[in-house]
Amino acid sequence: MQRYFLNRDALANDHVVLPADIAHHIGTVLRGQPGYRLVLLDGEGYEYEAEVVTLEKKSGTVRVIEKRPATTELPIEVTLAYALPKGDKVELVAQKATELGVHQLLLFESKRSVAKWDAKKAPKKVERLQKIMQEAAEQSYRAIVPTCSYISSRELSRQLETYDAVVVAYEEEAKQGEKAAFATVLQTLRPGAKLLLIVGPEGGFDEGEVIEWTERGAQACAFGPRILRSETAPLYALAAISYALELT
Amino acid sequence: MQRYFLNRDALANDHVVLPADIAHHIGTVLRGQPGYRLVLLDGEGYEYEAEVVTLEKKSGTVRVIEKRPATTELPIEVTLAYALPKGDKVELVAQKATELGVHQLLLFESKRSVAKWDAKKAPKKVERLQKIMQEAAEQSYRAIVPTCSYISSRELSRQLETYDAVVVAYEEEAKQGEKAAFATVLQTLRPGAKLLLIVGPEGGFDEGEVIEWTERGAQACAFGPRILRSETAPLYALAAISYALELT
Repeated sequence: MQRYFLNRDALANDHVVLPADIAHHIGTVLRGQPGYRLVLLDGEGYEYEAEVVTLEKKSGTVRVIEKRPATTELPIEVTLAYALPKGDKVELVAQKATELGVHQLLLFESKRSVAKWDAKKAPKKVERLQKIMQEAAEQSYRAIVPTCSYISSRELSRQLETYDAVVVAYEEEAKQGEKAAFATVLQTLRPGAKLLLIVGPEGGFDEGEVIEWTERGAQACAFGPRILRSETAPLYALAAISYALELT
Repeated sequence: MQRYFLNRDALANDHVVLPADIAHHIGTVLRGQPGYRLVLLDGEGYEYEAEVVTLEKKSGTVRVIEKRPATTELPIEVTLAYALPKGDKVELVAQKATELGVHQLLLFESKRSVAKWDAKKAPKKVERLQKIMQEAAEQSYRAIVPTCSYISSRELSRQLETYDAVVVAYEEEAKQGEKAAFATVLQTLRPGAKLLLIVGPEGGFDEGEVIEWTERGAQACAFGPRILRSETAPLYALAAISYALELT
């Protein structure tokens, strides 16, 4: 069934008025008719199976048949802090990290980030990523839409202490054959824990950055013995978290 | 250090003649000089640290300083059989699967594959993917270059019995909340085992296809409760394999 996120207030009653874009999508793109079944999500952990009652070109109503908790979220809240990479890799990461269960995406400029976002451009770029993440969340059966923000690296450092654990992807660890650190961190996390995952740009992190974070409690980790590209490392980490906490 | 795959025969002596493209890359792209250190790989599990002795525009020689086993391969051999997806997603998968340690990539046309490769086009496309995989193998410190081939779905079925285990990514299992199958299969595998991972196109597999493979011993698995896109599923599986077998 097709899934759409909706404002929670819109879902207060059994009869729900569809926004114009969703009515249009159901009627024109999916060729739905009255009786068409769909799932609405409140973005706060519940899904509502519903049936179309009326449908016009740009409006429509549905009747809620069943409200139930959505069970597709990771048992821990993973925030990915991703240093701006070159080109459009950030879009790939936003989409894939959403599919893989990320809770929040923080973008920041690290010392070796070649790409820079000026204060004027950033809000538009964040908005575009947020849209990509909403679509990915609907397609992948997420219960919430992860949020995206652009923050300074100073703000990132300040936030470190608000997490239960912080992991830094550091390729020097991979080259030196480090193996156990990531799994050891994951084993300490209980359901509901907040994990921050910091991943660098193409050239990796500056040693000074890594030292600053590890002094604040972060753990430098390798994601296997191979050297992963900047955009592959967060996907490895999220898949491994799902495997460790959802499948074993 | 920059890494290049070379024919094994070229590495028989301590002094190695560089092919024109590698000499050009070192001299023109990387601005290397005599004394420049690099790593040559024989594609069969050994790496050779070497130093440039002479360097012209399109030729050069290096002296091997140390031969050592490369230790960046997964402990099992993973073959990914990937049903042709739309557009250029197959290139993304070829690159990322190589970074994540795949041993072999088999492409095939499944019942719901929208993309078709005719017999004329296929060799050129495979050649292009093979080039992407060689570059990814060099960048990610792989010890071998995974191979890529295009096979019929009949040939794929015939090959099933040559593997120690076969896993099919099947989203119906994810929707039904299946959890343990993938980890259970991984736990049975000993070092050197051969695992075949079959991943479908955008619309997933036809039920008949899955039944045919499971009757031949394949295990239908979910990769977590979220619904992954066709190109994300193989990356999840490879990252999980690395996590399970290399980091824990």
